[in-house]
Amino acid sequence: MTEAGADAIVLEGRLADRSAWSAGDQCSIHRAMQVVGTRSAMLLMREAFYGTRRFDDFAVRVGITEAIAAQRLRELVDAGLLERTPYREPGQRTRHEYRLTDMGRDLVPATLALMQWGDRYLADQPGGPLRLRHAGCGADVAVEVRCADGHPVPLDEVSVGVNRPARD
Amino acid sequence: MTEAGADAIVLEGRLADRSAWSAGDQCSIHRAMQVVGTRSAMLLMREAFYGTRRFDDFAVRVGITEAIAAQRLRELVDAGLLERTPYREPGQRTRHEYRLTDMGRDLVPATLALMQWGDRYLADQPGGPLRLRHAGCGADVAVEVRCADGHPVPLDEVSVGVNRPARD
Repeated sequence: MTEAGADAIVLEGRLADRSAWSAGDQCSIHRAMQVVGTRSAMLLMREAFYGTRRFDDFAVRVGITEAIAAQRLRELVDAGLLERTPYREPGQRTRHEYRLTDMGRDLVPATLALMQWGDRYLADQPGGPLRLRHAGCGADVAVEVRCADGHPVPLDEVSVGVNRPARD
Repeated sequence: MTEAGADAIVLEGRLADRSAWSAGDQCSIHRAMQVVGTRSAMLLMREAFYGTRRFDDFAVRVGITEAIAAQRLRELVDAGLLERTPYREPGQRTRHEYRLTDMGRDLVPATLALMQWGDRYLADQPGGPLRLRHAGCGADVAVEVRCADGHPVPLDEVSVGVNRPARD
């Protein structure tokens, strides 16, 4: 029997007594999952990272119906991850494309962290189907938890405290 | 109008022509979202990272019914992220607790990356409700995309190629 124990985040200050608090709906993981916590939303963002911009391409490349693609893309636009902008090719009617915002682009670490985890535990071949490298130097890319001083930070060295004095 | 463009991952080799392939269900992001792509699954993992081990605590702290908690915990055990082990307190019947496996622990970067993104874009206060620091040195913790040579890697410097020679 263990309660907490070494294999966990270190809870600081008034968080140390876990029976006295719970994360509730202000938890940023909770809020993030409300926005990108469906497979189709996350795979549409993957496609945006791969350079997909057009509605038809999103639907086909994610393998979802146009109805679901339309709904999810609208949700991602409304949430601020993509913006919908008009374009027009010669002789064609005006169409729209979906472009990454800063908010959308900043989802890259979460998306690549899921890929890295899937590559390690869920893939048919070691390392997964794709290899990510740094275009600048060719070295393999990884998603890492680090501190500002550059140390890798394993789970049991992450220390969590309240960010600000409580208002109560 | 843009097709691909600078604001995207660099697609190498036979991936460069996006019309000639799509990720399909061997994509590791797809597979990861099949396992942890629900809010309740991700929040149960958050709780495991916070040190929660007991069934009742999981349900209460995530704010889900016992029925949903039981189903999701069973799914997470079956998928290999948690293991269910017996324990017994003096004078009590045998109970079970849920402990992290290596597979579960390795989801930390993805979970903290979602938190970091939510803290930046979805929180009520700057930086979000919690502050993560390195217990060893006190410096703030962040999730980063880096290459093995230590360079930070923004989206448009991530280069993706096929991991192995195709079997076809």
